[in-house]
Amino acid sequence: MGKGLLIIAHGSRVEETKDVVTKVVEKIKNLKNTKNVKAGFMEFNEPDISTSIREFVEEGIYDIIAVPMFLFEGNHVLHDIPEVFGKEKEKYPGLKIKFAKSIGYDDRIVDIMLERAKEVE
Amino acid sequence: MGKGLLIIAHGSRVEETKDVVTKVVEKIKNLKNTKNVKAGFMEFNEPDISTSIREFVEEGIYDIIAVPMFLFEGNHVLHDIPEVFGKEKEKYPGLKIKFAKSIGYDDRIVDIMLERAKEVE
Repeated sequence: MGKGLLIIAHGSRVEETKDVVTKVVEKIKNLKNTKNVKAGFMEFNEPDISTSIREFVEEGIYDIIAVPMFLFEGNHVLHDIPEVFGKEKEKYPGLKIKFAKSIGYDDRIVDIMLERAKEVE
Repeated sequence: MGKGLLIIAHGSRVEETKDVVTKVVEKIKNLKNTKNVKAGFMEFNEPDISTSIREFVEEGIYDIIAVPMFLFEGNHVLHDIPEVFGKEKEKYPGLKIKFAKSIGYDDRIVDIMLERAKEVE
């Protein structure tokens, strides 16, 4: 059944932040020509991480690559999210989740931030 | 005295996240050939936003462009940080702060995330 790509985002009470994640998911679906991409939110937005993992499992996908849509390797990425993964693995024997690094330092981030600065200069 | 560029980040208990912001600040200093770039953290790390603004003012810089190193336009960006700016403007008459947009949707973010996924594939 192939692999599932799970985009993990923090989520926010501000609804527009969900739209950004949705656009990322749709872009990856198009680029990879696959439907096996889902978002999973930690807080505030739906679907939450558990829901999206359950959906993958229901589709027969037990092999998941999770990518944190986080700039920083903070406590959410290091502790909170792996804890959720641990609980999900207990629910679904055979479930494998590989957790990618967060975005971290990248020149492209600097480029985008300088563009944002220029917009208000 | 020119403009100051203030990179606003959330901050984290995980010290490595500060290093990412420091690298961004150093990169921009080199790219722009200026010393007028500072980080300001909301929580956990130093310097905080107020400290960096005070330093700009002490250097005679009253014209600040603040760029949020945030992916999303969430409550921190929409409310908490502007509130801090409001208090700082009361302290320093003549202080001007233009607040840039957060990173938001960008194809380059998708590219980086797909690279991170590939690293664990």
